[in-house]
Amino acid sequence: MQIKPCGDRLLIEPTELQKKTESGIIIPDTAKEKPILGKVIEIGTSDDVKSNFAVGDTVIYAKYGGEDISINNKEYKLVQMSDILAKVIE
Amino acid sequence: MQIKPCGDRLLIEPTELQKKTESGIIIPDTAKEKPILGKVIEIGTSDDVKSNFAVGDTVIYAKYGGEDISINNKEYKLVQMSDILAKVIE
Amino acid sequence: MQIKPCGDRLLIEPTELQKKTESGIIIPDTAKEKPILGKVIEIGTSDDVKSNFAVGDTVIYAKYGGEDISINNKEYKLVQMSDILAKVIE
Amino acid sequence: MQIKPCGDRLLIEPTELQKKTESGIIIPDTAKEKPILGKVIEIGTSDDVKSNFAVGDTVIYAKYGGEDISINNKEYKLVQMSDILAKVIE
Amino acid sequence: MQIKPCGDRLLIEPTELQKKTESGIIIPDTAKEKPILGKVIEIGTSDDVKSNFAVGDTVIYAKYGGEDISINNKEYKLVQMSDILAKVIE
Amino acid sequence: MQIKPCGDRLLIEPTELQKKTESGIIIPDTAKEKPILGKVIEIGTSDDVKSNFAVGDTVIYAKYGGEDISINNKEYKLVQMSDILAKVIE
Amino acid sequence: MQIKPCGDRLLIEPTELQKKTESGIIIPDTAKEKPILGKVIEIGTSDDVKSNFAVGDTVIYAKYGGEDISINNKEYKLVQMSDILAKVIE
Repeated sequence: MQIKPCGDRLLIEPTELQKKTESGIIIPDTAKEKPILGKVIEIGTSDDVKSNFAVGDTVIYAKYGGEDISINNKEYKLVQMSDILAKVIE
Repeated sequence: MQIKPCGDRLLIEPTELQKKTESGIIIPDTAKEKPILGKVIEIGTSDDVKSNFAVGDTVIYAKYGGEDISINNKEYKLVQMSDILAKVIE
Repeated sequence: MQIKPCGDRLLIEPTELQKKTESGIIIPDTAKEKPILGKVIEIGTSDDVKSNFAVGDTVIYAKYGGEDISINNKEYKLVQMSDILAKVIE
Repeated sequence: MQIKPCGDRLLIEPTELQKKTESGIIIPDTAKEKPILGKVIEIGTSDDVKSNFAVGDTVIYAKYGGEDISINNKEYKLVQMSDILAKVIE
Repeated sequence: MQIKPCGDRLLIEPTELQKKTESGIIIPDTAKEKPILGKVIEIGTSDDVKSNFAVGDTVIYAKYGGEDISINNKEYKLVQMSDILAKVIE
Repeated sequence: MQIKPCGDRLLIEPTELQKKTESGIIIPDTAKEKPILGKVIEIGTSDDVKSNFAVGDTVIYAKYGGEDISINNKEYKLVQMSDILAKVIE
Repeated sequence: MQIKPCGDRLLIEPTELQKKTESGIIIPDTAKEKPILGKVIEIGTSDDVKSNFAVGDTVIYAKYGGEDISINNKEYKLVQMSDILAKVIE
């Protein structure tokens, strides 16, 4: 079963924050308004999103952006490309 | 009798959530603000909607989007294409 | 005397809901926020509205949309084309 | 002295409602939010308004639209073309 | 010293209302929301405003529009062209 | 050190109001909502702002517009071109 | 590890205010609504942002603009180009 985002959207898996401490980024869980990290699981169908993002990218996205979705008891986000603030290149 | 959505709209039949548990998606009924699943019953007349969706598609749509409509005592949704977040490909 | 809607507007006569029960659609009168049925009495002058609607069409329109108007003690609606959600084809 | 509306505007003289009873339209004075009838006294300078309206037209306009103006103790309206809902053709 | 409005703006001198009684227009001073009369003192630099207005025109403008400015203890208005409702041609 | 405004912005030094009394404009300090005078210190990089304004211009700008900035204990404004209402030509 | 802003965004490191006192700009820490200084650390991928800004630029940005992000316990801002008010050229 595959979730294919529509148009400019991306399916994002929020990254576990403990793991990120090693690679240098700490965004505390309590900072409700701050942008947060995630991994791109699927990208939408628009040319724009396909030329800017790839599955596997680590991204910083606006926390208020996007819609929550549960798949197999895990939480994901469907986020508009315009709410992706930056890519993390390691 | 056929309900033909206008322009970019789609007629959606919300999917029963129990049935979806088997295929891996659980979106609890109590999550009022979350996107929910549905099946596309009819699509609108615009080229845009016709090239992106087909009758029978399973879609995730923003719950706040669309208008409720009752046909033969069943609840349906008339939803703008822009409120369809993703397709579920099984 | 003829009421000719301007631009993208349509003159709609709300359909009596009892009559619709036979043809399969029930939209209870108490559902204030739901879209409701009507019959197109006149269409506007724009090319867009003329290529999408005809006098006599049965349509579902957003209840909050449009302006009420009384003609010979009957209530009608002047509704923008963008507030027509679907056509009912019988 | 002539009042020449700017751009897409029309100068409208609200029609006395008693007189309209004969021709079939009754829009009660107490219905504050309803569209009301008027006669076009002057039209604006834009091509758009000139190709759609003529002095002497009877129109239905959104009551909330337009600006009130008094000329020789009579009340008129300066209304944007987009707030004219329909023409009455007798 | 000259005040040259920018873009689509006009510098308007509000007309004394008593004087206007003779020429037929009365807009009572107490009608706070009504459009009011004024004389065009300077026009802006845009082609649009130059082709539609001239210094000396008498205009009716939306009272809520524009910005108040005092020059030598007299009150003027800097008004966007879109807030000029009509010209008065005498 | 130079402050170079971005895009359509201008760096404005608010003019001392006492000095302006001689040249004919009085905009009392207490009029919080009124436009106020200033001198253009730097202009932005857009062609539009460069063809309409020059360093040294005296301008009237909407008081609510712009952002305050302190340079060497003096207050300046960074104002969008669209909030400049008029030029004062002496 | 590199943070690459998306589209028109820039990664900004807010400048320590004490240091700036020497070069002439003082923007007190207590002025919550005022624009503030920062150094451009990374620029986005759009042509527009690349032709207007370079890594190392000192900029004044609207404080309400942008999103806070923590990298290695330091605070940064991801700011849209339209919220950069001016460059400081030393």
